[in-house]
Amino acid sequence: MINNNPLIIKFIYSLIVLNVISLIIEYYKGIHDNYSEFFQLFEMFSVSIFTIEYLLRLWTSDLNNKFKGNFIVKRMKFASSTLGLIDLIAILPFYLPFIFPFDLRIIRILRTLRLLRIFKLNRYSKSLKTISGVLKETKDELIMTVFVAFILLVLSSTLMYYIENDVQPENFASIGHAFWWAVATLTTVGYGDVYPLTALGKILSAIIAIVGIGFIALPTGIISSAFIEKLRHDKHKKGKQFIICPNCQIEINKDNR
Amino acid sequence: MINNNPLIIKFIYSLIVLNVISLIIEYYKGIHDNYSEFFQLFEMFSVSIFTIEYLLRLWTSDLNNKFKGNFIVKRMKFASSTLGLIDLIAILPFYLPFIFPFDLRIIRILRTLRLLRIFKLNRYSKSLKTISGVLKETKDELIMTVFVAFILLVLSSTLMYYIENDVQPENFASIGHAFWWAVATLTTVGYGDVYPLTALGKILSAIIAIVGIGFIALPTGIISSAFIEKLRHDKHKKGKQFIICPNCQIEINKDNR
Amino acid sequence: MINNNPLIIKFIYSLIVLNVISLIIEYYKGIHDNYSEFFQLFEMFSVSIFTIEYLLRLWTSDLNNKFKGNFIVKRMKFASSTLGLIDLIAILPFYLPFIFPFDLRIIRILRTLRLLRIFKLNRYSKSLKTISGVLKETKDELIMTVFVAFILLVLSSTLMYYIENDVQPENFASIGHAFWWAVATLTTVGYGDVYPLTALGKILSAIIAIVGIGFIALPTGIISSAFIEKLRHDKHKKGKQFIICPNCQIEINKDNR
Amino acid sequence: MINNNPLIIKFIYSLIVLNVISLIIEYYKGIHDNYSEFFQLFEMFSVSIFTIEYLLRLWTSDLNNKFKGNFIVKRMKFASSTLGLIDLIAILPFYLPFIFPFDLRIIRILRTLRLLRIFKLNRYSKSLKTISGVLKETKDELIMTVFVAFILLVLSSTLMYYIENDVQPENFASIGHAFWWAVATLTTVGYGDVYPLTALGKILSAIIAIVGIGFIALPTGIISSAFIEKLRHDKHKKGKQFIICPNCQIEINKDNR
Repeated sequence: MINNNPLIIKFIYSLIVLNVISLIIEYYKGIHDNYSEFFQLFEMFSVSIFTIEYLLRLWTSDLNNKFKGNFIVKRMKFASSTLGLIDLIAILPFYLPFIFPFDLRIIRILRTLRLLRIFKLNRYSKSLKTISGVLKETKDELIMTVFVAFILLVLSSTLMYYIENDVQPENFASIGHAFWWAVATLTTVGYGDVYPLTALGKILSAIIAIVGIGFIALPTGIISSAFIEKLRHDKHKKGKQFIICPNCQIEINKDNR
Repeated sequence: MINNNPLIIKFIYSLIVLNVISLIIEYYKGIHDNYSEFFQLFEMFSVSIFTIEYLLRLWTSDLNNKFKGNFIVKRMKFASSTLGLIDLIAILPFYLPFIFPFDLRIIRILRTLRLLRIFKLNRYSKSLKTISGVLKETKDELIMTVFVAFILLVLSSTLMYYIENDVQPENFASIGHAFWWAVATLTTVGYGDVYPLTALGKILSAIIAIVGIGFIALPTGIISSAFIEKLRHDKHKKGKQFIICPNCQIEINKDNR
Repeated sequence: MINNNPLIIKFIYSLIVLNVISLIIEYYKGIHDNYSEFFQLFEMFSVSIFTIEYLLRLWTSDLNNKFKGNFIVKRMKFASSTLGLIDLIAILPFYLPFIFPFDLRIIRILRTLRLLRIFKLNRYSKSLKTISGVLKETKDELIMTVFVAFILLVLSSTLMYYIENDVQPENFASIGHAFWWAVATLTTVGYGDVYPLTALGKILSAIIAIVGIGFIALPTGIISSAFIEKLRHDKHKKGKQFIICPNCQIEINKDNR
Repeated sequence: MINNNPLIIKFIYSLIVLNVISLIIEYYKGIHDNYSEFFQLFEMFSVSIFTIEYLLRLWTSDLNNKFKGNFIVKRMKFASSTLGLIDLIAILPFYLPFIFPFDLRIIRILRTLRLLRIFKLNRYSKSLKTISGVLKETKDELIMTVFVAFILLVLSSTLMYYIENDVQPENFASIGHAFWWAVATLTTVGYGDVYPLTALGKILSAIIAIVGIGFIALPTGIISSAFIEKLRHDKHKKGKQFIICPNCQIEINKDNR
């Protein structure tokens, strides 16, 4: 079956990744001008492969026990499933350029979504489950952190607006403009398009930047602890809880925690 | 009761968040000019809702067991409580523009403080308790880290001042100016308005930037370990407190720390 | 005794911190010009207090059991101890301006070193011990991380030099110049004075930036795990290892890990 | 034996590090011009030492039990081993400038690779093993994180391209250009060469920057938990393997996972 051959899986995924990469690099001037023919050929090749794959998936979908019903119903179900639709959307625009006269790149970017199929591979779906499980468990604390950060951003940008507005009436034209500075500082991105010029503004900025370290440390600490708890819990479930003393046959709790 | 209906709670919080967002975006040129009427309508709508809510809260505050006394005293107590005052301040200026002739945005920003009411919701107040508990427990270590960082900042900015002052007399006009560079580098914000030009300055800057990674790692490690300890402790309290003595089968309290 | 009165301790430390802050802000133009008299008065006041404190410390040092010998030897020992010398250096230049004709700010910055006395306070010296203990334990792993980062920096800056040298002969004039870019990118500081312009350079830069996240994650993970181990170890030592079954009096290992 | 004398080892490693540093700083204008003779002398000195060391290593390689065979075969094996070849490449170009007429810096940079020999020292090879063991164990989760980040980068740069293209046709000329912005924002590097100007673009940028904090927190959490698990596991192996059955007093292997 097409889903299970590791070589074919690797080939299809590589092709998806290459499609995304080609989309990113082809529009750099020079690259596009010199290799436009290569990109067109690659596009045709990709769509052909994706089409063959789609048809094979459609054909073999009646072997899939996930879909119930007779073989026609099964294929209809595959075609209307999320992944089936994504696969269709990824190839359709190539065949119907006259129906979709607008910019095709938007459609081609949808091929990125095909990457999501990677989560169907057992190995990665387990990792994703671990990660999303941890994020779900820590949701309340993380929302809280973002929330406190938001209040801090609003208050500091309000302060900064009143401090810097006189000196830089353009960069700090409103609290909204100051908010842009506050986000760039608290997340330690620091583009450098907006920064304080007054002594007071620099002191406030320094404080926000140092507090920003804390706002990196907090979610990291929250997520770390959840990962550790998860790991221990998983191990616990796998491991034996009790061992039998081979001499007197009584049960001893191996791990009292 | 108004406090308990989840739909009303969601509506009120959404309205507060929207008020803060409108405050942030409305002053972007273009947005304000094209939609000024919409913003005025939204302002009127918000204040009406907040007023109704305030009056209802005032009226129902005699049902609140937190405030003791007869129904008039109870309402007075609500009106003079922190959250009651914040609610009042958030709506009052709209009705008394002639009393507060100064810039109203400062008052409107106080509506952000209404967001603090979220902490009264049971679910989030627990998260906040966990986070603040962790921060309190690690206070000494965190203060220590900030303290060592401060000494490092002062020493490195002094050094940098003597290294760069000759080449960039404006950017490194004083140790105070160099301090601004030091903060931006150690917190990895890196606005890019001040950076060393000499070889020696760049080497010092590289060292500070690398040490800066350590000053992200330290508080994160401190906070992580406290979260993990908290999690384990909480679990312990929930979990079995007793173990069975394998010899005589009586129950023993496992955890008498 | 002067060392033990919490009020005096707080006053002295506040004065040291204020001295450092005044050093940082006084050279901002405008601040200095308008308040120069205030700064001079504050300087005189600080030095007076520090002098009195130094003399008192010198005088009472014969009560200190740490120093052995008769009262003259004890005072000599205090005067020649590291903290004693720092205290002396912090006040001496004020009285001997004709002996030290060079820039006095260098001496005044040494007052920062007096902040180190905070580590003598029991509470903070414990925190510092925890932190430095953790750093010592993870020294090998941290050195290793810096080492691998260094190799990565050298290799990536060599690559970048050959990629960008043609387009930006000034910014990437040598491998040394490219190294400056590499440090700013790997530590995610990103001043923005040097960045790649070619497509290839941008791809390399993106890879280094993403790897840079890993070089934040690694030391954090190392330090976190050491903190957790420390916390557990400290608790273990405090807690009882064995409990006596109150019925049959046999010892049970409470915590087998 | 040359490998075991700590003083010689320290001297050789210092020399390698100094070679790398000299390579980085010597091309800074001013430094090179004023000290070119010093750099040439240092180069000659380094190559002499490295040559002597190489010959000694070659000579004594028949004492090395790792290589099997008679003493000629052993030396041949050393000469063709990876580290042997690196050592040879590091000195060869100095003697054969007429054979390698191209830029010698590329060869000299290879001396960096000699730093890899540090991993042969027992102490650091253990640290490296710990780190690489942790990275291997968390490989799936880390790949997953990079993968999700990649999808996020593609989607956000596509969005940003459509938002900013009209206002900044040069900076956001293609999805590829927007991708450069997305990487700089998500990794919090923030060079500041490309940033959004529209209100919508700034809001998207703020969201990506905040999400970027999460993409620092995730790998950190993953790596932290793996380090902690490793530490505990290592301790377990060292610690007591047996517990005494409290009933019949025989020893039981506690850990048979």
